[in-house]
Amino acid sequence: MQKKIPVILVTNDDGITAPGIRALVEAVRGLGRVVVVAPDSPQSGMGHAITIGAPLRLDKVNVFDGIESWQCSGTPADCVKLARDKILHEKPDICVSGINHGANHSINVIYSGTMSAAMEAAIEGIPSIGFSSLDYKFDADFSIAAQVATDLTKRMLSTPLPEHILLNVNIPVVTADTYKGMKICRQAYAKWDEQFDHRKDPRGRDYYWMVGKFVNRDTGTGTDVEALKDGYASVVPVTIDFTDRKTKEWLEREWDLPSR
Amino acid sequence: MQKKIPVILVTNDDGITAPGIRALVEAVRGLGRVVVVAPDSPQSGMGHAITIGAPLRLDKVNVFDGIESWQCSGTPADCVKLARDKILHEKPDICVSGINHGANHSINVIYSGTMSAAMEAAIEGIPSIGFSSLDYKFDADFSIAAQVATDLTKRMLSTPLPEHILLNVNIPVVTADTYKGMKICRQAYAKWDEQFDHRKDPRGRDYYWMVGKFVNRDTGTGTDVEALKDGYASVVPVTIDFTDRKTKEWLEREWDLPSR
Repeated sequence: MQKKIPVILVTNDDGITAPGIRALVEAVRGLGRVVVVAPDSPQSGMGHAITIGAPLRLDKVNVFDGIESWQCSGTPADCVKLARDKILHEKPDICVSGINHGANHSINVIYSGTMSAAMEAAIEGIPSIGFSSLDYKFDADFSIAAQVATDLTKRMLSTPLPEHILLNVNIPVVTADTYKGMKICRQAYAKWDEQFDHRKDPRGRDYYWMVGKFVNRDTGTGTDVEALKDGYASVVPVTIDFTDRKTKEWLEREWDLPSR
Repeated sequence: MQKKIPVILVTNDDGITAPGIRALVEAVRGLGRVVVVAPDSPQSGMGHAITIGAPLRLDKVNVFDGIESWQCSGTPADCVKLARDKILHEKPDICVSGINHGANHSINVIYSGTMSAAMEAAIEGIPSIGFSSLDYKFDADFSIAAQVATDLTKRMLSTPLPEHILLNVNIPVVTADTYKGMKICRQAYAKWDEQFDHRKDPRGRDYYWMVGKFVNRDTGTGTDVEALKDGYASVVPVTIDFTDRKTKEWLEREWDLPSR
């Protein structure tokens, strides 16, 4: 019996015309039937937003040579939901998201639209990986990132991760000469420390722009931030079960609450 | 030396005029200096969205008797960030979010704007709790939920949880007679199974509404969904570290990748 050609769903949060998703499509093109369903406009910082109070548009577009592609007016999570229900009519064999223009390591995983698409797939039981390059520029060089994407997509198709676990993969700004390989990491406690730039509009009303600087407050070892600094691509296995089991015991003890 | 009066930041995702946040304000009013910073319009399903490509508005409003209140044009996570930087100028002693009109148990924690505000506070190292009632109606009876909120806010102020851990609290539709108390639970693998209702607009273009039904696929014990069904309020300790440590070992073994 011939093996079924794997179905590969590609999405992102920078929008379907971003160079990063083009690099990802090329990276996985040879590995199966590729279908792209991606936002029609940039959705960075959308976290795991979904569209429940408004209808969605979904239009077939011709963006990638010989690849079925759709643009959607919704969020990255919406794209994955719509792709499954209205385009693929079944679960794809893998969902890959990205390649994001900009880092999604450490605490950034929580805010990331790229990762929310991959997480949405993991919720559905679809093997999935989010890819982000630390190079946020529009014309970033995605060649090493694409190489990592091809490698990990192959591994995931041949030996899928335990169900409902996804990968958060970040790629440093490196060349073939300076790239050191991949490392399995844990999520660092490192984050943007935000402040707001206060301005007055032409009518005298206040408004605020979010600004910030990235700070690593994690003093432990084995983090994604550390690995990236040393020239490695970071691979963090991510769960969709946010329960902190240790604190369940703490609550029984300290607050005298009963466990279920 | 007199003890400092605790500062209690209240926010939500249904918007500052929702009855749920009014119930929460009343529930914590006697426990410290209450400051409300909440979205100026409903933000349900916003996940952990933040506003990075647009400026934010923040306006002082008079909504609650004798309580300093601000409405913000951003997401629930934006509200917490702005509150700290521009209103409180320091960390509050606790952040409480809700009371949400509708459940945020199980996988819903990932999509929840209510929980994203509480999670944002936990990221900053602020003790925080998200409260949600399973009664999604506008005129829901929040009396038991408010009682739970008072109780848990007191506990958190006197004995805060380990840093960066927050609580996801859901309250069933109960009366004083049928309410059974609180149970510490784990997050169930239970979720909305979504489909899309396909329609044509007056110009003949396709559009889609998300619809779905809630399904509990979790066969284990100790879940929030189970506890709620039995009339208990569910209390789930939630982490902001999504790393799945078990799968780190799996990756070393099965994919032969090195750990950092």
